Amino acid sequence: MKADILRALRESGDYVSGQVLSKELGISRVSVWKHIRSLKEDGYVIEASARGYRLVSSPDLLLPCEFPGWEEKIHHFQEIGSTMVVAKELARKGVVEGTIVIAESQTRGRGRLGREWLSPKGGIYFTLVLRPKISPAYAPRINLMASVAVAKAIRKAFDLKAELKWPNDVLIKGRKVCGILAEMEAEMDRVNFINLGIGINANTSISQYEKTATSLKEELRKEISRKQLLNSLLKEIAKQRALLTENKLLEEWKKLSATLSKRVKIVAPGEEITGRAIDIDTNGALVIKGKDGSLRSVIAGDCIHLS
Amino acid sequence: MKADILRALRESGDYVSGQVLSKELGISRVSVWKHIRSLKEDGYVIEASARGYRLVSSPDLLLPCEFPGWEEKIHHFQEIGSTMVVAKELARKGVVEGTIVIAESQTRGRGRLGREWLSPKGGIYFTLVLRPKISPAYAPRINLMASVAVAKAIRKAFDLKAELKWPNDVLIKGRKVCGILAEMEAEMDRVNFINLGIGINANTSISQYEKTATSLKEELRKEISRKQLLNSLLKEIAKQRALLTENKLLEEWKKLSATLSKRVKIVAPGEEITGRAIDIDTNGALVIKGKDGSLRSVIAGDCIHLS
Repeated sequence: MKADILRALRESGDYVSGQVLSKELGISRVSVWKHIRSLKEDGYVIEASARGYRLVSSPDLLLPCEFPGWEEKIHHFQEIGSTMVVAKELARKGVVEGTIVIAESQTRGRGRLGREWLSPKGGIYFTLVLRPKISPAYAPRINLMASVAVAKAIRKAFDLKAELKWPNDVLIKGRKVCGILAEMEAEMDRVNFINLGIGINANTSISQYEKTATSLKEELRKEISRKQLLNSLLKEIAKQRALLTENKLLEEWKKLSATLSKRVKIVAPGEEITGRAIDIDTNGALVIKGKDGSLRSVIAGDCIHLS
Repeated sequence: MKADILRALRESGDYVSGQVLSKELGISRVSVWKHIRSLKEDGYVIEASARGYRLVSSPDLLLPCEFPGWEEKIHHFQEIGSTMVVAKELARKGVVEGTIVIAESQTRGRGRLGREWLSPKGGIYFTLVLRPKISPAYAPRINLMASVAVAKAIRKAFDLKAELKWPNDVLIKGRKVCGILAEMEAEMDRVNFINLGIGINANTSISQYEKTATSLKEELRKEISRKQLLNSLLKEIAKQRALLTENKLLEEWKKLSATLSKRVKIVAPGEEITGRAIDIDTNGALVIKGKDGSLRSVIAGDCIHLS
């Protein structure tokens, strides 16, 4: 409901009377007043006068009311250990598909394989609870789906050529702008949940990262609207989500891939594989052609682009 | 250590002196005496005289000391809600691969898709914690692996033609003698754990089941040694476990399958598929050929043999 009030105030750009809001949203004027008070508590500056309410400024926070359609499903935190940990607790308790845990910053942000994910303020950090009716065999496709959605959302919003590095990074000019992590609990013939964690270096300063990383602010030389990007990313995820078991998803991934056709080195536990990346298979494994012409499918590992 | 004492007493069949046990096992005589006392508490009848110790009888229980090589990894319960629940708690706490939770009976035994699994005394009910270094994409093969291992262990121990029904039942003369359930927690490029639950109708009475079920006792018209069967099953699982990502596992499954070449009806959420089962693919999906010659891979569902 707060999302609806915000939308009404933003569309008007001027004062909107309590009576009009009450009528438009089908709630009492007391209820309108309560939601306005709650928005003020969230940090929204709203002027009240005889002419009604006027939105003066909004806080730069990814609050539930900024995401029409998702409002009821978003759990927002200023600072949290890890959105993955909280989302796992919620998923085990049975929350519905589409539940989202968002944090403005994380103190113990996690990346793939137990690594740390630096999560200072200014980034976008969230975990989305998914309950797809698929076999766990298809689960690695969630990573492909998510990276396609992130790259498309970035390309649509900005003049930036976001590309995909296998298995699940999003790059701009070869540097990482987004990391993706998914955790699953499943029986062999049904998925209980897959929690999809996405961290985007949005308005964070590049000095905070290694030189293999970048941020949208760094690339664009200005701050972006995190709210707009996350809104369009959630729409894009909903769209790609529908393609999860379709070949079209693999085609989309291939189109956006920076890995395919490159020479790569894959560092996997106990071995290194070097060769040319020529394809991904239906499970999301990278197909690598060795110097001797032999083909190998690699299911996991760190990928280094050699050419 | 108790397993070693039991083995020594059983091999002898007569009295074995404390001195000999102490020397053979490399422990003090006080320590021998303590283990003997502990075995007595477990229900083993052991006579002690000037000539030493003699094993008179053993309880019909699947105690850790009955499983040489596994003793340290077995958690045994007389009665428990579900071995799956206890094993999940242990796995989340980080217990090693090969940890086993065994129950003589379960009060809330679970089958696939949240169904009940009747677990009266006399059956074999256990959950094995596995931590395979595979992609979750290969996880459904755990079910194939386990059902192959159960069928082979039964065939080797008894003159019974155990067969496999897709996805993961073991049948004797078309009736179910064993159910298999696996639960996984994973990231997309590494499995945290897969808990493999196996329930075998061993010495249970057939009247306790529906007519689609049977038990080994029913088929053989006598009680079996649950200890011997579980010992050989654990060995067979270790053997098949090594084939997890090999094509050989699929070949083994096909050889033992009662489903392949039969006309089948698959009841999946929201749909029924009828046709001839002609193959399983690398992910364990059943390939069904329709009347019109069309091929479909089915990843999950209940399978009914029509011919």
